[in-house]
Amino acid sequence: MLTTEFEQPTMDDYPSRKHHTPALIYRRDRTVWGGADSGPLDDAALRGYDDRGYLQIEQLITPAEVESYTAELERLSADARLKGDERVVVERGSEEVRSIFEVHRISEVFAELVRDPRIVDRARQILGSDVYIHQSRVNNKPGFSGTDFFWHSDFETWHAEDGMPRMRAVSISIALTENHVHNGSLMIMPGSHRTFVSCVGETPDDHYRESLKRQEVGTPDQGSLSILAEQHGIDVLTGPAGGAIMFDSNCMHGSNGNITPYPRANVFVVYNSVENTCVAPFAAAKPRPAFLGARDFTAV
Amino acid sequence: MLTTEFEQPTMDDYPSRKHHTPALIYRRDRTVWGGADSGPLDDAALRGYDDRGYLQIEQLITPAEVESYTAELERLSADARLKGDERVVVERGSEEVRSIFEVHRISEVFAELVRDPRIVDRARQILGSDVYIHQSRVNNKPGFSGTDFFWHSDFETWHAEDGMPRMRAVSISIALTENHVHNGSLMIMPGSHRTFVSCVGETPDDHYRESLKRQEVGTPDQGSLSILAEQHGIDVLTGPAGGAIMFDSNCMHGSNGNITPYPRANVFVVYNSVENTCVAPFAAAKPRPAFLGARDFTAV
Repeated sequence: MLTTEFEQPTMDDYPSRKHHTPALIYRRDRTVWGGADSGPLDDAALRGYDDRGYLQIEQLITPAEVESYTAELERLSADARLKGDERVVVERGSEEVRSIFEVHRISEVFAELVRDPRIVDRARQILGSDVYIHQSRVNNKPGFSGTDFFWHSDFETWHAEDGMPRMRAVSISIALTENHVHNGSLMIMPGSHRTFVSCVGETPDDHYRESLKRQEVGTPDQGSLSILAEQHGIDVLTGPAGGAIMFDSNCMHGSNGNITPYPRANVFVVYNSVENTCVAPFAAAKPRPAFLGARDFTAV
Repeated sequence: MLTTEFEQPTMDDYPSRKHHTPALIYRRDRTVWGGADSGPLDDAALRGYDDRGYLQIEQLITPAEVESYTAELERLSADARLKGDERVVVERGSEEVRSIFEVHRISEVFAELVRDPRIVDRARQILGSDVYIHQSRVNNKPGFSGTDFFWHSDFETWHAEDGMPRMRAVSISIALTENHVHNGSLMIMPGSHRTFVSCVGETPDDHYRESLKRQEVGTPDQGSLSILAEQHGIDVLTGPAGGAIMFDSNCMHGSNGNITPYPRANVFVVYNSVENTCVAPFAAAKPRPAFLGARDFTAV
């Protein structure tokens, strides 16, 4: 046996958390898999998504729907049976509910939303296949004290920790409140989805417990981020409640904190292609719990 | 003697840190004291300043000047003789220099800048009198980790802790780097300068040592801030290096954190009217040190 742990040849196109220095690696997957004839997005929308790695939908759901999803979010946040559930993330100190994961399995209302053709037809079109839900959650960030979320590629974590093989997943964030430039809205470096930032560090066991609060391992280095920002710039994605953003799994994104009085709430769903189901993690001892990275690959 | 401590009549139009509940109080001072004939600002600029409480100057200093002030800022930040000087504020941990106060007394280069007629003529015009420097500083905030600065009115602190009697001071912030919507630029609630937010809490002794890092006493309450934001909205002030913002002492302002790679550096000077020189603090045992609130009222 000549191969040592350090010399093992790898089939991993997107190595991360394996080396001592960061690297910028070309993407080896298509971004858009379907054509204009296979769904509601037209040529221009698909081309924009291919170029920038994201697209915005001005009004995906109606004001009445925004109201009803907000009411459901409030009901779930107050539900005593969910206190202590590991899928519910609360604020240290205030104990206010910040996120509820796997919300499509917790709530009938959200279960219906994640199967909604307005969303699923677009996800199928972009990914060129049937899709299943890799993760779902609702987020509720208060005004005055919203914390930042540092730059990251979701795919880096899903690949390293959940075993997602390739970049063939799309996230949708549906706004339940207005996103302004000043209240910690999503920032994306447009076009950054074409570059994979290989991160340094090794995944600790049960890393997800810490990383839900503040991620350190799997965080891109400042040098790589400066290069990407210089090359691509930074878009701040604003829009009304009821609007939505669909973005590629490898977009470099993050958000600043929020001292304004305006809270932010949204529904977040990740669709993965059924031709891209998760295997063993590429850089972790075992996969994260299923509420963070599904192991049930049944198509919606 | 019938008057008790609680019943004492007060001549203070802007009480703060004296009561148990916050209050919104009408401003009792003019914002603009001079006319279009008394300086470089025309009628429209003065009217805009009167309405919004601030004005922007697209290019106040040249790119060459931006370079030379940046070089001077770097020279001062590296100056070993200034380490340990209480006027120099360093980052906890990294020991990087974040702010240098009273910079016009520390550096000949900045001494010249604060006397520059392009600035002083405008300050005199707005305040309708000769002016002196209440405070000066340079700020240098890194990218990737810039922290937020919560909403506040400078006048609240200057009145409570420095004994500035009335709202007749103007601040200028001269940008040495570009201000984007996404890198923690100054946010102002336009028109908020017409309302004084009376804050709760009592000023602790030597409060300034803590408040330079994170202010708690003298912080407006969330209810008042929500009312002001609803009424006035929030402007995010962007612009190129070399541009400047002049704003009234009572503007409600703050800034979000900054996870982008883009640092922010600026020169900040407060001009007060010589007819508004500081007396004993209105809500503190003794005035702050002179490098934070000058006790030398010599006109520039």
